[in-house]
Amino acid sequence: MAGEFSFIEKLRQRAEGHASLTLGIGDDCSALQVPDGHELLTSTDLLLENVHFRLDWTNPHDLAHKAVSVNVSDLAAMGGRPLALYLGLGVPRSFGAGQLDLFVDGLFEGLADYAICLAGGDTCRSANGLVLAITVQGHCRIGQRVTRAGGRAGEDLWVSGTLGDSALCLRRLLARQSCSTALMARHFRPRARLALGQALAEEGLATAMLDLSDGLDGDLGHLLRASGVGARVNINQLPLSSDFRAHLARQPELIDLALCGGEDYELLFSANPQKRADLERLSQRMPLPLTCIGQLSAASGLQYLQADGSAYRPTAGAFDHFAD
Amino acid sequence: MAGEFSFIEKLRQRAEGHASLTLGIGDDCSALQVPDGHELLTSTDLLLENVHFRLDWTNPHDLAHKAVSVNVSDLAAMGGRPLALYLGLGVPRSFGAGQLDLFVDGLFEGLADYAICLAGGDTCRSANGLVLAITVQGHCRIGQRVTRAGGRAGEDLWVSGTLGDSALCLRRLLARQSCSTALMARHFRPRARLALGQALAEEGLATAMLDLSDGLDGDLGHLLRASGVGARVNINQLPLSSDFRAHLARQPELIDLALCGGEDYELLFSANPQKRADLERLSQRMPLPLTCIGQLSAASGLQYLQADGSAYRPTAGAFDHFAD
Repeated sequence: MAGEFSFIEKLRQRAEGHASLTLGIGDDCSALQVPDGHELLTSTDLLLENVHFRLDWTNPHDLAHKAVSVNVSDLAAMGGRPLALYLGLGVPRSFGAGQLDLFVDGLFEGLADYAICLAGGDTCRSANGLVLAITVQGHCRIGQRVTRAGGRAGEDLWVSGTLGDSALCLRRLLARQSCSTALMARHFRPRARLALGQALAEEGLATAMLDLSDGLDGDLGHLLRASGVGARVNINQLPLSSDFRAHLARQPELIDLALCGGEDYELLFSANPQKRADLERLSQRMPLPLTCIGQLSAASGLQYLQADGSAYRPTAGAFDHFAD
Repeated sequence: MAGEFSFIEKLRQRAEGHASLTLGIGDDCSALQVPDGHELLTSTDLLLENVHFRLDWTNPHDLAHKAVSVNVSDLAAMGGRPLALYLGLGVPRSFGAGQLDLFVDGLFEGLADYAICLAGGDTCRSANGLVLAITVQGHCRIGQRVTRAGGRAGEDLWVSGTLGDSALCLRRLLARQSCSTALMARHFRPRARLALGQALAEEGLATAMLDLSDGLDGDLGHLLRASGVGARVNINQLPLSSDFRAHLARQPELIDLALCGGEDYELLFSANPQKRADLERLSQRMPLPLTCIGQLSAASGLQYLQADGSAYRPTAGAFDHFAD
């Protein structure tokens, strides 16, 4: 197998520049200049084999592409524009040169999709499983970023795309059941809602925002705590794909996957009710479904309401990595 | 064991702010403003249990402190000033709450030592061993950073501190031999040469610089390739600690640990010979030994010379993580 330094050299040669990046791969640090009047946004993720992904299900190309998307999704959730990505990669002996090539291809495809450049990283042998540590940097005009804390009582709660598809795919794969191409795509090749996040931030449409990684129930909880408000969510207004609806018709309990399933990588945001027409127009422009699923309330707590007005309580909670 | 979210909350509460950090732990991204006229420096490292460290030798406090130092050392090597650190942490079940507390104490001690703030991260359960992914951000005035590529033939080659102590400690521990407190400190609690790196960059004393992590032989090779020059290094001028010299007197072959051993975390830099007096004064001011170990040459290649002028060739090369 080619050595560590030749692998790094291969990455360096494929890495494309960026106007802001003044020093890329190959020195002790990268150097970049954040545009005047902008601030730097940074997010970091750790992805471990047999915790976050399984190599017997995920091909290395999809894995790398998803790892980029998942991280860029955090930039999207602040309304940021991508600058640079850093890859920490621990490679077990069992991960062959062919798999590594597929991984690198998927990585650069993801980088190109979001126009983010590879600016550095660290590679090593892993004694146990593939390890991915990704850090992304982006920027936004000072004053334009959208945090989780800006939601106010009376505002609408919106979500992009559809919910539960990724979790439904995972559920079916775990049960060794068949899965449609559309559901597989949502699980293995999620897309960060970058253009949407930028538009929501730069046009002043969202008051609070985050991306759905742990599931609507858990992530909305983060937004509510940060904003100091509660919420009512109408279950029958949740945006669901036709595939999801077909399964739901046979198994009504699957609705919990749309509430708690995780890995949707859609944007959840609050907005002033006066912005409804603007948001409808934005939805058509993207084009991407934007759905109002409820309202923020002064009363604390999160209430799910069914079509008949009765309360609903999902059975599963958000995934806690440290739970025993 | 306390859950993932309460662990993150504990980190958030202990994290101290920084004038440049406008949004810290707890949102999708951190946000920070790089000072006007400065550029952002970023470096990332992946540290894996049983590859980079062993928990039966290293206590979690030292491990966390060293992880911070090793990353800050990359900022030092560019002449940067620290801003923010991001921690990706994969925790195996075998790593108990008491160990996690020690780790967090060591982490914050390291952060305080270098006045760098914890600005974000990611935590998860690890199926196999402790995983640390650290990214550091710093800044330097545009035009002042020192890369590996600025060395010119005829310049002096300098190194800070002493070489080989960390590798000698590791060699003795692996052989189950005793080790002095001083050598142990160099291996388990290295200090990033941050003030030195800043002074060398800001006073325009170094033309090329990097930190010694893989060993002088390998790291000097990086500097030579990037600068397009060769070098002659005088073995008898290598700065060695009194402990190292005592061992060397009995085992002359240990000199290779000073050349190829790694984990010195000293700064290696080139400088114009006219700067010798300035560098002597800087050495006294720090105070930290700075030693001229040789010269850069127009002829390519790296030559080690013994006291009698004969050539020397070390037997070990730099550590290649992907070598089989």
